[in-house]
Amino acid sequence: MAGNTFGQAFKISTFGESHGIAIGVIIDGCPANLPIDLEFIQAELDLRRPGQSKITTQRKESDTVQVLSGIFEGKSTGTPISLLIPNEDQRSKDYEHNKDVYRPSHADYTYDAKYGIRDYRGGGRSSARETAARVAAGAIAKLLLRHSGVEIFAHVSAVGLINAPNLSDLSIDELYKQREENIVRCADPATARQMIECIDEIRKDGDTIGGKVSCIIRNCPVGLGEPVFDKLHADLGKAMLSINAVHGFEYGSGFSGSEMRGSEHNDIFLVNAGKPTTLTNFSGGIQGGISNGMEINFTVAFKPVATIMHNQQTINAAGEAAEIKGKGRHDPCVVPRAVVIVEAMAALVLADQLLRNKNSRID
Amino acid sequence: MAGNTFGQAFKISTFGESHGIAIGVIIDGCPANLPIDLEFIQAELDLRRPGQSKITTQRKESDTVQVLSGIFEGKSTGTPISLLIPNEDQRSKDYEHNKDVYRPSHADYTYDAKYGIRDYRGGGRSSARETAARVAAGAIAKLLLRHSGVEIFAHVSAVGLINAPNLSDLSIDELYKQREENIVRCADPATARQMIECIDEIRKDGDTIGGKVSCIIRNCPVGLGEPVFDKLHADLGKAMLSINAVHGFEYGSGFSGSEMRGSEHNDIFLVNAGKPTTLTNFSGGIQGGISNGMEINFTVAFKPVATIMHNQQTINAAGEAAEIKGKGRHDPCVVPRAVVIVEAMAALVLADQLLRNKNSRID
Amino acid sequence: MAGNTFGQAFKISTFGESHGIAIGVIIDGCPANLPIDLEFIQAELDLRRPGQSKITTQRKESDTVQVLSGIFEGKSTGTPISLLIPNEDQRSKDYEHNKDVYRPSHADYTYDAKYGIRDYRGGGRSSARETAARVAAGAIAKLLLRHSGVEIFAHVSAVGLINAPNLSDLSIDELYKQREENIVRCADPATARQMIECIDEIRKDGDTIGGKVSCIIRNCPVGLGEPVFDKLHADLGKAMLSINAVHGFEYGSGFSGSEMRGSEHNDIFLVNAGKPTTLTNFSGGIQGGISNGMEINFTVAFKPVATIMHNQQTINAAGEAAEIKGKGRHDPCVVPRAVVIVEAMAALVLADQLLRNKNSRID
Amino acid sequence: MAGNTFGQAFKISTFGESHGIAIGVIIDGCPANLPIDLEFIQAELDLRRPGQSKITTQRKESDTVQVLSGIFEGKSTGTPISLLIPNEDQRSKDYEHNKDVYRPSHADYTYDAKYGIRDYRGGGRSSARETAARVAAGAIAKLLLRHSGVEIFAHVSAVGLINAPNLSDLSIDELYKQREENIVRCADPATARQMIECIDEIRKDGDTIGGKVSCIIRNCPVGLGEPVFDKLHADLGKAMLSINAVHGFEYGSGFSGSEMRGSEHNDIFLVNAGKPTTLTNFSGGIQGGISNGMEINFTVAFKPVATIMHNQQTINAAGEAAEIKGKGRHDPCVVPRAVVIVEAMAALVLADQLLRNKNSRID
Repeated sequence: MAGNTFGQAFKISTFGESHGIAIGVIIDGCPANLPIDLEFIQAELDLRRPGQSKITTQRKESDTVQVLSGIFEGKSTGTPISLLIPNEDQRSKDYEHNKDVYRPSHADYTYDAKYGIRDYRGGGRSSARETAARVAAGAIAKLLLRHSGVEIFAHVSAVGLINAPNLSDLSIDELYKQREENIVRCADPATARQMIECIDEIRKDGDTIGGKVSCIIRNCPVGLGEPVFDKLHADLGKAMLSINAVHGFEYGSGFSGSEMRGSEHNDIFLVNAGKPTTLTNFSGGIQGGISNGMEINFTVAFKPVATIMHNQQTINAAGEAAEIKGKGRHDPCVVPRAVVIVEAMAALVLADQLLRNKNSRID
Repeated sequence: MAGNTFGQAFKISTFGESHGIAIGVIIDGCPANLPIDLEFIQAELDLRRPGQSKITTQRKESDTVQVLSGIFEGKSTGTPISLLIPNEDQRSKDYEHNKDVYRPSHADYTYDAKYGIRDYRGGGRSSARETAARVAAGAIAKLLLRHSGVEIFAHVSAVGLINAPNLSDLSIDELYKQREENIVRCADPATARQMIECIDEIRKDGDTIGGKVSCIIRNCPVGLGEPVFDKLHADLGKAMLSINAVHGFEYGSGFSGSEMRGSEHNDIFLVNAGKPTTLTNFSGGIQGGISNGMEINFTVAFKPVATIMHNQQTINAAGEAAEIKGKGRHDPCVVPRAVVIVEAMAALVLADQLLRNKNSRID
Repeated sequence: MAGNTFGQAFKISTFGESHGIAIGVIIDGCPANLPIDLEFIQAELDLRRPGQSKITTQRKESDTVQVLSGIFEGKSTGTPISLLIPNEDQRSKDYEHNKDVYRPSHADYTYDAKYGIRDYRGGGRSSARETAARVAAGAIAKLLLRHSGVEIFAHVSAVGLINAPNLSDLSIDELYKQREENIVRCADPATARQMIECIDEIRKDGDTIGGKVSCIIRNCPVGLGEPVFDKLHADLGKAMLSINAVHGFEYGSGFSGSEMRGSEHNDIFLVNAGKPTTLTNFSGGIQGGISNGMEINFTVAFKPVATIMHNQQTINAAGEAAEIKGKGRHDPCVVPRAVVIVEAMAALVLADQLLRNKNSRID
Repeated sequence: MAGNTFGQAFKISTFGESHGIAIGVIIDGCPANLPIDLEFIQAELDLRRPGQSKITTQRKESDTVQVLSGIFEGKSTGTPISLLIPNEDQRSKDYEHNKDVYRPSHADYTYDAKYGIRDYRGGGRSSARETAARVAAGAIAKLLLRHSGVEIFAHVSAVGLINAPNLSDLSIDELYKQREENIVRCADPATARQMIECIDEIRKDGDTIGGKVSCIIRNCPVGLGEPVFDKLHADLGKAMLSINAVHGFEYGSGFSGSEMRGSEHNDIFLVNAGKPTTLTNFSGGIQGGISNGMEINFTVAFKPVATIMHNQQTINAAGEAAEIKGKGRHDPCVVPRAVVIVEAMAALVLADQLLRNKNSRID
């Protein structure tokens, strides 16, 4: 029972290896009659594309998306939407020397142990290249959410020990504009400069560094989330933890909430312009697993990329000591390219829960 | 599309409200011929039971489990196992006064908004009473895992700002023994004393406090977890985030991993007694979403309980300002009773992934 | 991966053995605010109840349904609805003599071979007693469908070689009235008399006889059914084939359609009172797997009950020749009690597809 | 909640329209290390390919399959297998004239009513062209089943009123050889000649004719099938009913079983060469929904193809009377090409149940 399907009502199935012919996704469950802006899908993919700046991997992929089915005369038809992204820059030979060696903190060993066979070229299916398919599908989820007015925004909130300040006073448009003005994708310009400097130094050391991505969702309808297991934040958490290199997830007050008292943590209800609202938002927009109309916010922790430019001690498939050479193409820090992946996975969860909620009560 | 089913191969469906006739669970997919120790299931429920000490809620429930089906002559039969836990101490009248008022940071408002109807008695389905069904099902998952040698242990690692030290040198048996020697369920005796004192003070203030539960899994077979969406830690994360009051999840290096460099974070492979092992374990026993045979470890952050003994400002169903009285029965700190819930959810994930993995390769 | 769950949006999970403590069902996905008429659920169960006439089994079960959760103040709350039916008349000792013997054309051998253990008392989980849980859940599905105006009616259309005439000119109310005026549940009084006489003779011979149940659905909304696998008739077919003793399913022109030419089989479209309609209905109300608004009709073939009052040659668990005695309680013909089971399963499919269809297009 | 996914453990998701760029399928859950014979997959597709004889449609499609992922060095890797079949001969203009007209007994009207939009070119997603993806996936399922020794064979058992005799004395190899010696794919040569003559006359009349396909499965392991809903025959029935134009399904004694007495229908158990066997096989190899090791057999009824060369009265999207011209390419009888589709769907069900059964009991 493999696990390459995500979502129940807005359901995606992805496929493809890093150095195979193509990667792609089928979306089953997108409602019919949704206008599909192909340029928007491509623009989203361009945000994740490798080789986009000096602080990302130098692999060259145009990541040009092709629509194989499900869209007719510019609109979804209710049938499965199939999106294909051919692989172009496959330097598979770069990986020949490592085919029997387990790279530390990669999935080489566990894939071999689980399946008894492994496509060693560029990590095969375990490569983060797989996330391009998620971004393509997430773009269509975003189009569906926009139709309902929902807005999603993520940015890099930390690189190593450098943390961005709270920016909750800005509009999504302002945040987006400020984020795209720098290559690290942090919406605070001063912090962004520090982050870029940090990553650049790390890169020169042949090393890598972890970081965090924070995401907010505004104008989310009240009522999304399905107790008791498919709570909105539980689905968001799973979605984020399924992204390569993610080691932690928190929403609302998060880990710091575990240090607080109920009397300070409780979000007092008020009525604002005729609508229920809360004075504080330690709940992160979700109560009892269901959205309450306030801003949803969460943070995702990424470990440092495991591919480094240093030689490392390891073992091979025969269980013997081996050395792994520090070479290949990689990102010194994954978070700038992960921003759009976080948004895509958030969009997939929200689109799924939006559709699921249609049957919460009789008309 | 409601969300009261969890797992794919070892699948549970739970039901029941806090003040209904009973809560319960159906387990579909437990392999046949597994000896079922009913006393063990009851003992697990006793760890979660309300009213067990001065630092837990005073609601009295024996939580006596009844088996309705699926077990014959002491063994599972491969048919659905149905477990029932009648509700006994239902002081529903305690909740009459709040039936139209939304308690801050509870699910009252969101349930009303989503469903247009709400069983207001004790929080209805949103009450943590629902987790008793998870513990009962988790006990059977533990029996299945024991059959494969897998060991699970959780304890309270933080109450407010009081944190337990690392105890990874102790065996599961030692950890369990030390945990059960105190009412807060922290395996470090000195820390436990501080925690109990803290909670007792909080309780006297009519207030509540958050905390953390940490969990380890030993002797997990290599190969569990289904890329790319149902990674082992993604399923664990969702399981934990679906527990009431959880606001955060991290595994392995977790959030602190986001501050590290690749060269320090990478877990170097060694061969130990003929078996692949790693020098460090920042990966938390999971690489590429698949268990690698090392200890799996994760931490769960709980917010403070929302029910406090203070009067609070709020609104009612008509959107008018209202006051909520500080009364009723509640836990000043949820983590001591949450320990067994965390273990149960971990067991459900591992049992599910253990069964799913049976088909990872042809025989 | 067991198979005790049915449906995706309106999802049921059943449990229970013939001679266990109880059987029951959880319904997850019933929209909130649906008025639930408990007397109607009980009345439906009474139609399936054993011991209701001389041509049914003499086992005495009141089949009294209990609601454990999900209904509050007479309405569904959107949380799981749990229904329990205790077993009362368990003469388990009647089965002791057969515990190691495989009854011909029963599931004794296959359960033993699959699970390595078997609850031999009354067939355990393989007993048709399990269908009472389906009828209880189906009753709630019917209440949901009534809310949308959908009408379902089934009756006995054949017993052995005795076939009922076409009754499509009658209203559902008339059909129901005529069906309930006789114990064999055939809506044609003359045919019913013949059938009853036939079954009574068969019963006196200690033998059993097969039969057919035919079902019609009126006022079904256009658009139900999900291509390409979950076509409406594919889901109906699976639902019917999952009922004990069913060996065949056909809809619309059915098997006789395989003998026809396209020029005679095609249903010509007309407009009737401003609504699309068809001149004939060989399509059985379903085109391309989607309801077209015409009457849906299908027929289900039941084999004769395997328990007969004759001694039969067989084998035991050790693989030795054995004889099975003709004794115990059983139905001489299963179809009179199957009528409400067929309706229930049809209702479960339609309720599920009704909810699934809510997301076929954007608003 | 769309329905383009089939299976739980061996799970396929298909996509594609008749006149889109391509159709295809993702298989998620094929165990790793299975040798994949691409020539076999292509050979299976060639059996379904249009334009293969005078009694099939003249559309020209090579149906050349491409593997995009999941296979490495000739073996499955445990990751999703993606298969693509480009569309070549798309005479979409042939359909322009019918874009607003509802063809009788096609899915034009129901797709429009359900989705509010329709790809009218060649029936879009409702075209039987979609089944090529099923055949490609089914070929891989067959490879998995062969690994376990399971054999599947289907042939045309009826065209209109012409029925083939029982051929159960022949081996699968003999049956296959005889079937492939004629273009109608009936394993009885004399009947085949009659069928071909019949279809050829029908074709000259510009008309179409229905038929039946019968399928047998030999060497199926005992124990496949998951009570109570996913009984083996229930899954087979759904699989068959999901194929375009299917109106009926029966297994074992089928509809004729409804006319029999229990004393003649019961399959007496014997021991043959140390293995349990039955004297007769009215159960069709399945008891209680679980395979019993005997030959599994079932029959599928296909209605006549709706596209005929006669002008027909109908309505258009505006609800006005219209006439549909008799032109285009179509099959006069669908069953010769459906044989391999029936086998493919049977293989998908069996592969799924084979994997699901791995967890029926503890080791």
